[in-house]
Amino acid sequence: MVALGGGHGLSAALGAMRLLTDRLTAVVTVADDGGSSGRLRSELDVLPPGDLRMALAALCDDSEWGRTWSDLLQHRFASDGELDGHAMGNLLIVSLWQRLGSTVEGLDWVGRLLGARGRVLPMASVPLVVEADVAHGERRDTVVGQSRVAVTDGLIEQLRLVPADPPACPEAVQAVHDADWVVMGPGSWYSSVLVHLLVPGLATALHTTTARRCVTLNLSAEKGETHGLSATAHLDALRRHAPELAVDAVLVDPSAVGDVDELERAAAALGAELVVRPVRRGDGSARHDTLRLAAAYHDVFEGTGRRRGSPVAG
Amino acid sequence: MVALGGGHGLSAALGAMRLLTDRLTAVVTVADDGGSSGRLRSELDVLPPGDLRMALAALCDDSEWGRTWSDLLQHRFASDGELDGHAMGNLLIVSLWQRLGSTVEGLDWVGRLLGARGRVLPMASVPLVVEADVAHGERRDTVVGQSRVAVTDGLIEQLRLVPADPPACPEAVQAVHDADWVVMGPGSWYSSVLVHLLVPGLATALHTTTARRCVTLNLSAEKGETHGLSATAHLDALRRHAPELAVDAVLVDPSAVGDVDELERAAAALGAELVVRPVRRGDGSARHDTLRLAAAYHDVFEGTGRRRGSPVAG
Repeated sequence: MVALGGGHGLSAALGAMRLLTDRLTAVVTVADDGGSSGRLRSELDVLPPGDLRMALAALCDDSEWGRTWSDLLQHRFASDGELDGHAMGNLLIVSLWQRLGSTVEGLDWVGRLLGARGRVLPMASVPLVVEADVAHGERRDTVVGQSRVAVTDGLIEQLRLVPADPPACPEAVQAVHDADWVVMGPGSWYSSVLVHLLVPGLATALHTTTARRCVTLNLSAEKGETHGLSATAHLDALRRHAPELAVDAVLVDPSAVGDVDELERAAAALGAELVVRPVRRGDGSARHDTLRLAAAYHDVFEGTGRRRGSPVAG
Repeated sequence: MVALGGGHGLSAALGAMRLLTDRLTAVVTVADDGGSSGRLRSELDVLPPGDLRMALAALCDDSEWGRTWSDLLQHRFASDGELDGHAMGNLLIVSLWQRLGSTVEGLDWVGRLLGARGRVLPMASVPLVVEADVAHGERRDTVVGQSRVAVTDGLIEQLRLVPADPPACPEAVQAVHDADWVVMGPGSWYSSVLVHLLVPGLATALHTTTARRCVTLNLSAEKGETHGLSATAHLDALRRHAPELAVDAVLVDPSAVGDVDELERAAAALGAELVVRPVRRGDGSARHDTLRLAAAYHDVFEGTGRRRGSPVAG
């Protein structure tokens, strides 16, 4: 199985999927330009490691060993000095890259350190810049950089990558081809999820793979790049950026459904069945519950094409 | 067995001793104030990790796993920015300290990561400052900081620690008590070797342990704090800083002997037998050869007290 995304959304998907399989590959955005990753990228001319680090931590072995090293990877320095804000795992990943001279080999070594279930790969072999044409009412402008796109309060009309034709990570392309299921989302819809479709080699693999495709919708659109956007609008944006992409299942929490008929139609336009399952945490937070999400993926992976999900009005 | 020291000298001793035993503890100076360690100490208020890191790397398992993580620990960032000069292992050790809240536990986790043969402990539980009274001909001044003491070109008359009465690391004290042999040196004689005798709890343990004591003399005194000092003068400095300390063996390379009768007398004044063995690398460098040093330690540990070494004029 392959999960595409970045940030906390991808971690949620991986945390659930690792309960279902050991044969799991995360294909991760490398367009981050903020925080510790942005500083490393600019200082050392490397891929931004932050989303890769988070994905690796999500796959760590559930043992004292795995948890200790995973905690270490997620550790952030806090000081008045030069290290403030740097995540330890970012520094470790970059050091492995510099020593081994190979992005994939370095990530595989971190995976071994963590006893990770599965593998973490970058979506592209070079650092990327995300650009978006954004409408603010009548006014339009171009927002540059993932960290800015992710928090724009305008309506994103078009997403672009710089460079426009980056080389996909060959191992990621292969993983998409070899997969039974490819899962996109949840996550920052434009800057972490749809962005994968803008890497030509990866987009081709996503269109031509024999794998089935599942889209996991977000729990809320309360802030940032998809502020106020309905679940249906999320699917429309996907269709706009990949009109030919066939999807098999769209997984959504009841609370995020909105107009269920409209959402079913939008899913059907992608060729997908709408699967409504409670996947939100019980604590009221807008975060996925690992076990509920795992159970929902189990339903999707086992059931889609053989039986329908049970849509529930939100 | 216990090895006391710091820096490259301690690494040389550990590299040799690990060939002779799995029950090996390094007790390491924590007075460094230069480079990456000095910056971390000042930015994050932690023990300087550099000498601890080097000792851990010297004990790494001789496998692809051990060598990969040991290389990673020794990796240094090179850039025009804030990370330039930082050793990766220093950042990793400090992160473990901050997460686990325990110096010893953090070092033990790095040891586990490396598959280290043996254990690495700090000589004291708090960061230390080394001060030295230094004579430059008639003029005398006080040099503050290990990095300055190590390169002073004057004659060091007295070494002090600030604070003067630091708490020894309890596990280090215990290791000295439990040891069969304690090895001091090679290394920067004042700032890495003799400095252990200034930590009261550790000094007491060194004086009262039933372990036998071996002093490993340096190969050359070509630069820095012992510039121009003979092997005999090294032993005199030891005696001046610990007049009551009985030593069982003094190990020296033929090339560093100088006046063999004088050196034998200086060793005898400590209660020690002089063991002259070729321990220098064959490449002409002033570095210890791991296998030769291991063979010499083997002779010392097996032979001292039962048979004499074979002094050879240098």
